[in-house]
Amino acid sequence: MSMVCLSDFEAYAKKYLPKIAWDYFAAGADDCTTRDENILAYKRIRFRPRMLRDVSVMDIRTKILGSEISFPVGIAPTGFHQLAWPDGEKSTARAARAMDTCYIASTYSTCTLEEICAAAPGGLRWFQLYIHRNRAASQQLVRRAEALGFQGLVLTADLPYTGKRRDDVRNGFCLPPHMKVKNLEGAFEVCKMSLLDPSVTWNDIYWLRSLTRLPIIIKGILTREDAELAVKHGVQGIIVSNHGGRQLDEGPATIDALVEVVDAVRGRVEVYVDGGIRKGSDVLKALALGAKCVFIGRPALWGLAYKGEEGLQDVLRILQDEFRLSMALAGCASVSEIGQHLVQFSRL
Amino acid sequence: MSMVCLSDFEAYAKKYLPKIAWDYFAAGADDCTTRDENILAYKRIRFRPRMLRDVSVMDIRTKILGSEISFPVGIAPTGFHQLAWPDGEKSTARAARAMDTCYIASTYSTCTLEEICAAAPGGLRWFQLYIHRNRAASQQLVRRAEALGFQGLVLTADLPYTGKRRDDVRNGFCLPPHMKVKNLEGAFEVCKMSLLDPSVTWNDIYWLRSLTRLPIIIKGILTREDAELAVKHGVQGIIVSNHGGRQLDEGPATIDALVEVVDAVRGRVEVYVDGGIRKGSDVLKALALGAKCVFIGRPALWGLAYKGEEGLQDVLRILQDEFRLSMALAGCASVSEIGQHLVQFSRL
Amino acid sequence: MSMVCLSDFEAYAKKYLPKIAWDYFAAGADDCTTRDENILAYKRIRFRPRMLRDVSVMDIRTKILGSEISFPVGIAPTGFHQLAWPDGEKSTARAARAMDTCYIASTYSTCTLEEICAAAPGGLRWFQLYIHRNRAASQQLVRRAEALGFQGLVLTADLPYTGKRRDDVRNGFCLPPHMKVKNLEGAFEVCKMSLLDPSVTWNDIYWLRSLTRLPIIIKGILTREDAELAVKHGVQGIIVSNHGGRQLDEGPATIDALVEVVDAVRGRVEVYVDGGIRKGSDVLKALALGAKCVFIGRPALWGLAYKGEEGLQDVLRILQDEFRLSMALAGCASVSEIGQHLVQFSRL
Amino acid sequence: MSMVCLSDFEAYAKKYLPKIAWDYFAAGADDCTTRDENILAYKRIRFRPRMLRDVSVMDIRTKILGSEISFPVGIAPTGFHQLAWPDGEKSTARAARAMDTCYIASTYSTCTLEEICAAAPGGLRWFQLYIHRNRAASQQLVRRAEALGFQGLVLTADLPYTGKRRDDVRNGFCLPPHMKVKNLEGAFEVCKMSLLDPSVTWNDIYWLRSLTRLPIIIKGILTREDAELAVKHGVQGIIVSNHGGRQLDEGPATIDALVEVVDAVRGRVEVYVDGGIRKGSDVLKALALGAKCVFIGRPALWGLAYKGEEGLQDVLRILQDEFRLSMALAGCASVSEIGQHLVQFSRL
Repeated sequence: MSMVCLSDFEAYAKKYLPKIAWDYFAAGADDCTTRDENILAYKRIRFRPRMLRDVSVMDIRTKILGSEISFPVGIAPTGFHQLAWPDGEKSTARAARAMDTCYIASTYSTCTLEEICAAAPGGLRWFQLYIHRNRAASQQLVRRAEALGFQGLVLTADLPYTGKRRDDVRNGFCLPPHMKVKNLEGAFEVCKMSLLDPSVTWNDIYWLRSLTRLPIIIKGILTREDAELAVKHGVQGIIVSNHGGRQLDEGPATIDALVEVVDAVRGRVEVYVDGGIRKGSDVLKALALGAKCVFIGRPALWGLAYKGEEGLQDVLRILQDEFRLSMALAGCASVSEIGQHLVQFSRL
Repeated sequence: MSMVCLSDFEAYAKKYLPKIAWDYFAAGADDCTTRDENILAYKRIRFRPRMLRDVSVMDIRTKILGSEISFPVGIAPTGFHQLAWPDGEKSTARAARAMDTCYIASTYSTCTLEEICAAAPGGLRWFQLYIHRNRAASQQLVRRAEALGFQGLVLTADLPYTGKRRDDVRNGFCLPPHMKVKNLEGAFEVCKMSLLDPSVTWNDIYWLRSLTRLPIIIKGILTREDAELAVKHGVQGIIVSNHGGRQLDEGPATIDALVEVVDAVRGRVEVYVDGGIRKGSDVLKALALGAKCVFIGRPALWGLAYKGEEGLQDVLRILQDEFRLSMALAGCASVSEIGQHLVQFSRL
Repeated sequence: MSMVCLSDFEAYAKKYLPKIAWDYFAAGADDCTTRDENILAYKRIRFRPRMLRDVSVMDIRTKILGSEISFPVGIAPTGFHQLAWPDGEKSTARAARAMDTCYIASTYSTCTLEEICAAAPGGLRWFQLYIHRNRAASQQLVRRAEALGFQGLVLTADLPYTGKRRDDVRNGFCLPPHMKVKNLEGAFEVCKMSLLDPSVTWNDIYWLRSLTRLPIIIKGILTREDAELAVKHGVQGIIVSNHGGRQLDEGPATIDALVEVVDAVRGRVEVYVDGGIRKGSDVLKALALGAKCVFIGRPALWGLAYKGEEGLQDVLRILQDEFRLSMALAGCASVSEIGQHLVQFSRL
Repeated sequence: MSMVCLSDFEAYAKKYLPKIAWDYFAAGADDCTTRDENILAYKRIRFRPRMLRDVSVMDIRTKILGSEISFPVGIAPTGFHQLAWPDGEKSTARAARAMDTCYIASTYSTCTLEEICAAAPGGLRWFQLYIHRNRAASQQLVRRAEALGFQGLVLTADLPYTGKRRDDVRNGFCLPPHMKVKNLEGAFEVCKMSLLDPSVTWNDIYWLRSLTRLPIIIKGILTREDAELAVKHGVQGIIVSNHGGRQLDEGPATIDALVEVVDAVRGRVEVYVDGGIRKGSDVLKALALGAKCVFIGRPALWGLAYKGEEGLQDVLRILQDEFRLSMALAGCASVSEIGQHLVQFSRL
């Protein structure tokens, strides 16, 4: 099987993963409209490519919160990597380090934070967390992450309750007995999301702030109003995200929401986006519309499902090559030359 | 068979109902464009979900014309429930009461109003009527309904003649001999809609007003002009409806017409909507656009077809759970927090 | 086979006509985009139906150029009716008279004008003509038509050359040997459209005017500029038409062009439309947008193919019933109440 | 097999060409969105046809850079014609001369420029070139072309690197051993695009200018900004092109970009367009929107694949007939009558 583009990895994963795992990773809420819109919305954006610009030396490196990465694509937080590959998040961490980019480890990892860090010492990593009813447990996780050298805290804001993913309900999705949400062992029992605290509000950002000196990135923002609140409450970054279309169905595609959020933020904090990235040119579009970096969720899992660490590196390398080529064909030799002039919208 | 969402009930009903009954319930006028548009129009509306709002305590109750219901979804008037389940409207009444919501009983019920009330004493019920050529018969129905404790009269305005539903013509649709439109027995013969008076005008609202102290709700309004006339003629409520797409084909989807009607009414009377509701998030959209409550037609029949009273409760419970979850994920803890800010249109 | 709507007749004709005949009638130019757009454009128009208006007495009669017809649907000129039914245009004439409407007989009839008139004496008929290179032949046709009591001359303006209909080219379409374009016998040989004069201009309207006192209706106008020229050159009526999508592909749908033409004409002459009428509600839309009457082409041929005169009457009766019902459901009791307020556009 | 329209040639080529050759010619970059959009964008443009204009004498000739051609369709530069037909570019040259139009010979021809010229002496030809890292090689090609009587130099601007065409990657596309890129033999080795210089900028136009007195046409411009730069740097013509959708995917369709470029250029240089031309009416649309001439790429290859020189003549003759007919049906007797008034947009 020749792996030429990300869809090849998707087809592989669909074919070889256990159905319950594939369904879980693929799931969107309700009718999966938003999950699919995340992809379709990119297709509605047209480039305005410029010609005859010297693109002989390409520089695709960028910085996020001061750390340099090899290109503006990181790994979004997704749960349960052992469902995709036996080594789970350890493979993810190794691939991210090998490709010199940022990996956002999920609270719902099937390896501990310690295992993740030991697997790929020195890699750039952020830690994704929820605020639990049991605040002491959240506090403990933050302290562990900080101690382990994670360089950012990503607070997921769009999951007061879990979205309704029909296939998971039909499958009665649950982790196989030999896998565990190891970060939470002892602190609570898993497979019941009611551990999350649906009473969390913006003021809890201040509480989080009080626990750590790490930068706080808020994930799940889709409107200018919330972007404004995020800036006001002192976060360092915003990830425009709809949780891969797994939470509220029929909200905006993330690339559409990005424009609104970037507009509201006016450069005061960094803005990132996830959801629907399938080609290097999608990355270019996101950057043209103001994202500092994008994060990939499902494609990373497909890479893991294909060949673990190596498969994920393949995925990242393809995106990197495609991104570099798109930049060159659009007339940009470095990330700093990317701007809104590169695209026009034709919204449906 | 696992019933996860309303489409599951639809698939069940299509599989197990006699074809003539399924066709009758499913029928739309002419090309069924409006029937299908009712659903598609919801999909064109995008949420603007808000994050980090305390949604730990959810309150989804609302009031319609002063009566509290457990959530803003009632049962729209549809005919011939015995085609779906042997107990017919008695089961419908029981399910509505059990779920603590409003049931609009149709003139074209296969149980009498008395049987309906006896089956579920104390339930909140409105009575749907047409104005017949034989006004005395209409008057008698109004008096019966009022005496039986119905709390509202729903006048259907969009059926001066029956729409052209091709499948019904092809099937030669008629009630089976053992079913009867019991409310009209004696007064007239059925299966001929010519009993309805196509000369009815707005002035007949005054005549209806003179017969009863019950609030009058007019059903079938689709334009601002008619909404204005409805208010002017003293109705207490408006149901924006196109009769499930069974009357004039290629009129507006009800959710699109709702915006126009709400705008014209400016809060002077309550506005409701039916048609195309298939998910809890559709309910949220309708409320965001100004509906006080929505009513479901075909999904209620699918629930009946599945398991009678119990099946209809399943349908309502799913909608209730989905509505509550959508509210929470959109950042609303109570119905009063729902407003236009929650949605944006991208009309086709 | 139960004939409920016009599509039923289409399916019948497709099944039972010889392929070469079906292909000829169905043909559109090039990619058939305009042929299909004629139908799709109607579907993009939404009604704004009004309720509670007295529609107990329906009057659907109208007048075209002073002659009353039973409802605003006439028979458009199409050629070669014997391809659809042995009696050809004689059956068409009888059906039109029986239904009390107007029949525009084509120059390319397979019966003579005399046979057509003898078959249905007293029917309202217009004669469609082209201007031939041999002007004497055209003059002779005009004189014959006038003498036979035709009450209008319809000049087709959109056929300086025949459009490219791929299936006809592939089939090598030609009339079977036992059929003839009888009106032209002697005057010229058929199956070569080069008889038509591509040098015709607006000034030829004056020449035509000089030959006859019959009203002149020009067929094939699609722009405001040409509508203005038509009025200026003294025609009595305009048929907005794209020849059923058989001439220039990718021009406007006729219902879209109608709006522009009606606007330009400002009531100075009557405007009609053909192309894409498949339901009674299409007729209502055309009238709402300013047409005085519509003409049907292919559906008339399907009716003929089904049962000759009787089949065409069936088609007309279905359209009549559907039109009356649509009017009533939209709140109009007579044709004079139809107006632009009944529709809204949502152009693609 | 009856060849009625260009799609017939496409179907033939798809059926009879070796898969690797078909795939190479058909390939678009990434998801092939732009390749397909080139065609779809034409379908979104509607004609506004005018009637009753004397179209008895049709003149479809035009001039490009002062040379008369029989109709405004030339042959775009495409590579490797021997993949389609044994005689390769020699057949192409003969067909173009026979049809009295312009052939842009590609650097990546499988015949030498000398062979091409010897095959069809006296034909109107332009030479397409890239600027190579080895400037001396480019210079030598320019001198050869000028000496051989080529009348224009077409500089391709959109290929600093080759686009990612998935099927070519999967097939490991490479020329069969018996074919060679003969123009480059000796100068460099082929099948490695890295020969092209990605550092080329607008200033290199001046260098090219210094080598030759031939007019320079720049190919691959898609924005008003680049059109302005092209004029400023002294080119004589612009070909609006996206390389058949083979370079940057999800840029604009060429017919959409044409409008923008024509607007920017304001008649200072001639503007041409390629990509998506499949019918004579597409040519008419392009001219209505300001193109002086269009060029066909893949359809020419399909013609070659069908019957070599003769097949390409068939393709050109069909386009010519369709173009003439479209002009007549739109009311234009000569190319000079074509203008923006003939079309309206309904952009998606």
